[in-house]
Amino acid sequence: MTNIVTPSILPGFNEYLPEDQILFNNMMDTIRHNYESFGFLPIDTPVLEKAQVLLAKGGGDTEKQVYRFSKGDTDMAMRFDLTVPLARYVAQHFSELSFPFRRYHIAKVYRGERNQKGRYREFYQCDIDIIGNGSLAIENDGEIPAIICRTFRDLGFDDFTLRINNRKLLTGFYRYLGIEDSLSVLRIVDKLDKIGIEKTIAELEELGLSEDSANRIMQFIAIEGNTQEVLKALKALEINDELFSQGVLELEQVVQVIELFGVTEKDYKIDLSIARGLDYYTGTVYETTLDEYPEIGSVCSGGRYDNLADYYTKQSLPGVGISIGLSRLFFKLKEAGHFKDSPKSLIKALIIPMGDNNNEAISLSTKLQDNGIACQIYLESGKINKKFKYADQLGVEKAIIVGAEEVETGLWTLRDMVTGEQEKLSENDLISLLKNV
Amino acid sequence: MTNIVTPSILPGFNEYLPEDQILFNNMMDTIRHNYESFGFLPIDTPVLEKAQVLLAKGGGDTEKQVYRFSKGDTDMAMRFDLTVPLARYVAQHFSELSFPFRRYHIAKVYRGERNQKGRYREFYQCDIDIIGNGSLAIENDGEIPAIICRTFRDLGFDDFTLRINNRKLLTGFYRYLGIEDSLSVLRIVDKLDKIGIEKTIAELEELGLSEDSANRIMQFIAIEGNTQEVLKALKALEINDELFSQGVLELEQVVQVIELFGVTEKDYKIDLSIARGLDYYTGTVYETTLDEYPEIGSVCSGGRYDNLADYYTKQSLPGVGISIGLSRLFFKLKEAGHFKDSPKSLIKALIIPMGDNNNEAISLSTKLQDNGIACQIYLESGKINKKFKYADQLGVEKAIIVGAEEVETGLWTLRDMVTGEQEKLSENDLISLLKNV
Repeated sequence: MTNIVTPSILPGFNEYLPEDQILFNNMMDTIRHNYESFGFLPIDTPVLEKAQVLLAKGGGDTEKQVYRFSKGDTDMAMRFDLTVPLARYVAQHFSELSFPFRRYHIAKVYRGERNQKGRYREFYQCDIDIIGNGSLAIENDGEIPAIICRTFRDLGFDDFTLRINNRKLLTGFYRYLGIEDSLSVLRIVDKLDKIGIEKTIAELEELGLSEDSANRIMQFIAIEGNTQEVLKALKALEINDELFSQGVLELEQVVQVIELFGVTEKDYKIDLSIARGLDYYTGTVYETTLDEYPEIGSVCSGGRYDNLADYYTKQSLPGVGISIGLSRLFFKLKEAGHFKDSPKSLIKALIIPMGDNNNEAISLSTKLQDNGIACQIYLESGKINKKFKYADQLGVEKAIIVGAEEVETGLWTLRDMVTGEQEKLSENDLISLLKNV
Repeated sequence: MTNIVTPSILPGFNEYLPEDQILFNNMMDTIRHNYESFGFLPIDTPVLEKAQVLLAKGGGDTEKQVYRFSKGDTDMAMRFDLTVPLARYVAQHFSELSFPFRRYHIAKVYRGERNQKGRYREFYQCDIDIIGNGSLAIENDGEIPAIICRTFRDLGFDDFTLRINNRKLLTGFYRYLGIEDSLSVLRIVDKLDKIGIEKTIAELEELGLSEDSANRIMQFIAIEGNTQEVLKALKALEINDELFSQGVLELEQVVQVIELFGVTEKDYKIDLSIARGLDYYTGTVYETTLDEYPEIGSVCSGGRYDNLADYYTKQSLPGVGISIGLSRLFFKLKEAGHFKDSPKSLIKALIIPMGDNNNEAISLSTKLQDNGIACQIYLESGKINKKFKYADQLGVEKAIIVGAEEVETGLWTLRDMVTGEQEKLSENDLISLLKNV
């Protein structure tokens, strides 16, 4: 007698039943299709890397979450994002790549975070980045969000908002106000939504800013309106700072390019309050929210950085990229009932032999397959109701019944599994009909 | 100054340049498409599992190769195949699944094997299995190889051989000869190709078999011919053993079903010499070789088993399945020059703006994308030759030149990157042409 071990997975890890996996894969396929359509090339790096290489940049909180271990003498770690492996990949294969190097990477990453609902320790990221060799045109900063807008539209979201800002503009503004420690200011301003205006001003004054400076900051981040209004208001501030001016110019160029790529103000807006982390991005930054599901927060973020891989190479590799956190997005959408009417079967029909007609059913399935019709055949014995129940459980829309009468007459019974309606069809008619379902 | 860490990956691990990754993904997509077309459902289990669960079955060589480690109090391990996770999944979600449960799983597995060429420590398996609840019709054993044949044909292999045998037939035969320890005999016979006939007979006699029995074994495994000849020869042996007869009957049923599924003797054969491992499979067994690349060995193997998950559940879960070892197959095919004429780009055209016409080029790219034409735009400054070189490196077949003349006349220049030929086309003609490339 075998000892039975209770089957279960690790806390914080996740797997879906097939009907949800189909929906998840649909989203992943749509994202991949969009990425590929814009010339992004696939890469697939190892999940396990040398710890020394993966953690070359070191760094606080993330490092504690990394799954790191030794086997023999080898110190290894599981990747915790797709950016560090990209940096390593580009540095390692530099001479074999063509620049600008556009890559997409859709894969699992691992973080031993505190276990909480919808935050997984193993989750998918869907990244695109464009890496330049020495330089990278600003137009790329406008193409990336355009691709994301097209992707979300293809995913079935008509209403979303892609927010754009520019870090140079922010840094220049604060520098002009005589604020040397702009990082601390950004850190406080970044929390505005959470802590409110008053507390933000108080924290800014605690930093040593004058009341006037704190108020100017609040005025600045309160700038709103459509793209042209915001750009006009920024220029009207008359901030005499080179970095600020460069940031405004970049923002102006980026929104122009976005519109040339077919994105309208319905889908994007300039939002001066977003800063996206505080040390990585150096120019354009993006966040995306779904208007229907504001509670999800940003579903897609990214931006421009000066140097992808300074820990691995002396080459200057500026880039711009964005990432969709698919696992969390899917979890939240499912929770919100987003998929309740989605189809859950990948086949057109289940073929159900009755009585002793397995062979005829198999021959029919072969003809359907030869015509490119995805189908499955139920080969187990049993009563018709058991077979229909199986078809229902699979969520398949049509069943084809192959019984004695069908074999004799050469007319197959096609049953609509939703309505229960049945019709008799010749093989050719059946094939034409299913090809066009 | 940042310290530079040399970028490299772990020995035994692997990653491809994008042009190879595209070819790899093409194969993976073809396999997935075939699996889905036959009603196999996707699952995606965690790479990391509880060590106690993953290694419940325990067992020798594999266990030493497993990447196993602790984080906090948790003892975890990376999956080393897709069968154990399937067993765990089916046992865990038993009440939520419909049986027969058909699942496919295409994913990476991890084995810290001795490092050797073409044997990776991280590699893809592409598995399908059909799991019954209590019983599973023998017809399923004939469908699985038919799906594999269709898959290999879609992968572009016209000449391959799927070899079929039956373990019951083998066990019954040896039992009839009075051999109790049929496992030892099978183990010796399994090496026939490696050690030759004489050494095989010698080893059999060492086991304590009579010369007559050893000779009868050699006669048995020498049976050859087409399907009907082999089946006739098996029956002519007049082995009066129930298990043997059942095995022959199953084999007969399986080959009949295979043919109904559209597979001819060009693609499959009965091969009494294969046994596929020695304790897991209990009925039908399969191996597949590519006629053009015999040196690769079996590229796809599997078979029937009595009980998938007896370590996790008391439910009886008979099944049949097969696995394609895609990473090794791809490595070997690439080594053999199989892909030398394969296209390496996923886009239809690279749009190349000349002079100051980035905006016009972007507008054009938007129109192409709106028409479902995958394209990329080269946004960096530089001379035309640099831009053509980039197009060549990408392996893209067409370039669209957007210069002052094109913008003025409204006729775009389409360049064939292979021949260097150029033609001028209106936007509509360009779109029609690229849609049909």
